[in-house]
Amino acid sequence: MVKRDTDADARPWQQLAQTVLDRCDLLAACTDEPGRITRVFCSPAMTRAHAAAQPWLEQAGAAPRVDAAGNLRGSYVAPGADATKTLVIGSHLDSVIDAGRYDGALGVMIGLAVVEALQQRKTALPWAVEVIGFSDEEGVRFGTPFLGSHAAAGTFEESLLLRRDARGITVADALREFGCDPAAIPQCAPAPGCELVAYLEAHIEQGPALELAGRPLATVDAIAGQSRLAFTWRGEGGHAGTVPMRGRRDPLIAASRWALEVRRVGLEIAGLTATVGRATVDPNVPNCIARRVEMSLDVRHADDMVRSAATNQLVEIAEAMAREEGVAIAVEHHHDHAAIAMDAPWNARLTAACEGLGAPGAALTSGAGHDAGVMARVTPTAMLLIRSPGGVSHHPDEAVTLTDVAAAIAALTTAIEDFAAAS
Amino acid sequence: MVKRDTDADARPWQQLAQTVLDRCDLLAACTDEPGRITRVFCSPAMTRAHAAAQPWLEQAGAAPRVDAAGNLRGSYVAPGADATKTLVIGSHLDSVIDAGRYDGALGVMIGLAVVEALQQRKTALPWAVEVIGFSDEEGVRFGTPFLGSHAAAGTFEESLLLRRDARGITVADALREFGCDPAAIPQCAPAPGCELVAYLEAHIEQGPALELAGRPLATVDAIAGQSRLAFTWRGEGGHAGTVPMRGRRDPLIAASRWALEVRRVGLEIAGLTATVGRATVDPNVPNCIARRVEMSLDVRHADDMVRSAATNQLVEIAEAMAREEGVAIAVEHHHDHAAIAMDAPWNARLTAACEGLGAPGAALTSGAGHDAGVMARVTPTAMLLIRSPGGVSHHPDEAVTLTDVAAAIAALTTAIEDFAAAS
Repeated sequence: MVKRDTDADARPWQQLAQTVLDRCDLLAACTDEPGRITRVFCSPAMTRAHAAAQPWLEQAGAAPRVDAAGNLRGSYVAPGADATKTLVIGSHLDSVIDAGRYDGALGVMIGLAVVEALQQRKTALPWAVEVIGFSDEEGVRFGTPFLGSHAAAGTFEESLLLRRDARGITVADALREFGCDPAAIPQCAPAPGCELVAYLEAHIEQGPALELAGRPLATVDAIAGQSRLAFTWRGEGGHAGTVPMRGRRDPLIAASRWALEVRRVGLEIAGLTATVGRATVDPNVPNCIARRVEMSLDVRHADDMVRSAATNQLVEIAEAMAREEGVAIAVEHHHDHAAIAMDAPWNARLTAACEGLGAPGAALTSGAGHDAGVMARVTPTAMLLIRSPGGVSHHPDEAVTLTDVAAAIAALTTAIEDFAAAS
Repeated sequence: MVKRDTDADARPWQQLAQTVLDRCDLLAACTDEPGRITRVFCSPAMTRAHAAAQPWLEQAGAAPRVDAAGNLRGSYVAPGADATKTLVIGSHLDSVIDAGRYDGALGVMIGLAVVEALQQRKTALPWAVEVIGFSDEEGVRFGTPFLGSHAAAGTFEESLLLRRDARGITVADALREFGCDPAAIPQCAPAPGCELVAYLEAHIEQGPALELAGRPLATVDAIAGQSRLAFTWRGEGGHAGTVPMRGRRDPLIAASRWALEVRRVGLEIAGLTATVGRATVDPNVPNCIARRVEMSLDVRHADDMVRSAATNQLVEIAEAMAREEGVAIAVEHHHDHAAIAMDAPWNARLTAACEGLGAPGAALTSGAGHDAGVMARVTPTAMLLIRSPGGVSHHPDEAVTLTDVAAAIAALTTAIEDFAAAS
């Protein structure tokens, strides 16, 4: 057990944390868009990120490989460990468009630091510890998230291989271009006779709660359920100067009215988030009345019933407003993920570790989806959220402090050592 | 004077009209986007449109040339005409994105048909008659309209040459790529000692008024004034699932509220159109709160004071709403065009010609801007609007009837013959 912070105790964790932050900077330079961080599934930037990270895995004694789903993996098998059992520490290496440098990448680099700590401390481990950098969590390229963790969990649906990106390339072809064999995706999951003992994930909080509470770390009781939908309004295009206002059937008006309702419902229901983050207009020129407008809807809540009722309400409102505005509407459900509870014994271990470090953790519901939500279906899973100054996320201003990252590495390492000692 | 419709009288006009419609079909095939009609300033599609139309100009005895602004021009000098004086019949050859086939192109092809009619009828003309297909009226590529007619009128501002398209290409470079010399643009206007005697333009109505009135043609008393602005809201991006609803500063909410105000003001003020046709969101992904939203505003009215007051009101509303939503706002005035009266004597001639044809015309204010609005500053100018079934415009469903087009050719030819006889 790590003792309360003294200079001497803290130094090794801070050195590991500094390496983590340096590596996050190096990964940030692997981008598909010059001048900002964008790194999507199986893109050239992801190839460069893998090339950068592979030597780090090697140095940590975790022989690197890229699996059939484009996940970067490295397994550290301590002397005497049973290699058929694996504890996974992971997060994702892909990013949103114009992202920060910590969402995902920080968790992978922390996983690597934990392996380095376990090695340095010569901890006896009865199972392998594998670090995974998942290939897709954000879903930017193919409009569907968690491609990487679904493969690792064995819950990857084959039909996903046929999805196409904006340029018409399928998931299968993107994987082939990346050097992967999509037919081997089932082998991303544990082989027969092998098993996962746990999945742990460190991640920036992406919200303001820890900063407001003055705490560096939090465990997660549950990942909020999430619904994602796409709404399309079709009206009557026309010339902006010649079609009288009365009698217009302008889909941008119907969509704008609805976007305000999304905010209203989001404000009314405690704990709900409801967001329109994407809007496109066709033909999208100043002197043409819009013909077609699309908007996304993202709804999240810890209680699946509340989320589902709010989503249905927003669909009904959209339909009613479309009727009023004389425009057609189509609603597409992209996905519904139920809220997922994290593993209570692991949360107890992480909480004890935080307290032992003098950094008592909070317990939060995660409004963000995470690979942990996928892995929780197949193995005991827990998360450690790290304070995000300003609550900033999905933005270049994302930040963490060295001290908080050191605390996260120490807490995860300690919790794993406790579990190993009890195994 | 053409007499009231009899089968024998109507036939030559209908033959010319059929040729006009056939040529509009051929021009529609010259597009920058397969599957839909998009033909922008100095694009490959425009090169193909010029190549298609040049033989038609030659056949009509109007030697074709492309001027320094990319306008296609052909001048017919009747025996005995004074070539230093020119009556121009024109419209534009560029289009909006996913356009119909008649907006612009129809007027150019009717101009050509009028020249053919004047030749066939061996009308004595004291001046040259020039047909011009302007290179840019819609402003799609460079965000500023009327590049072609400004050059022909001698009102082209040199600073326009530095404007850049979405790919960073300047107007000057686009012209060079198209084979034009931007330095020679001043020579697009009449040379010293030469003069324009009039500018006439046929154009689809682009609205429902003529269809509702049961009339094929209309003269135009004035072209409505037009203001075009761009609004940019900047808020605070963030993760859609982790930033609580309360305290968000979402620019899409501020923009949506304002778009509804645009419609409200448009409905409240008689004769006003107020349109948001363009909206873009950054970063525009479903799980990110928007960081920046842009919307266009297009306001038109026959009375400049009314238009200006409505525009100012909408700017003030946008600023007030931005304050309420805690987002920043920037407003850019792209252009303000005053309402422009058309030439009364020419309107009288066109009205008389329509009546003589048994097709009494209406008198409308044009909500759409036209090259005629630019040319009216330098020469007596008039327009003839042609009924648009369904009032459709800026849309692939744009249509005209053979009979209405024949009436337009006959009315223009007759009015020009009246003017020539009186000159």
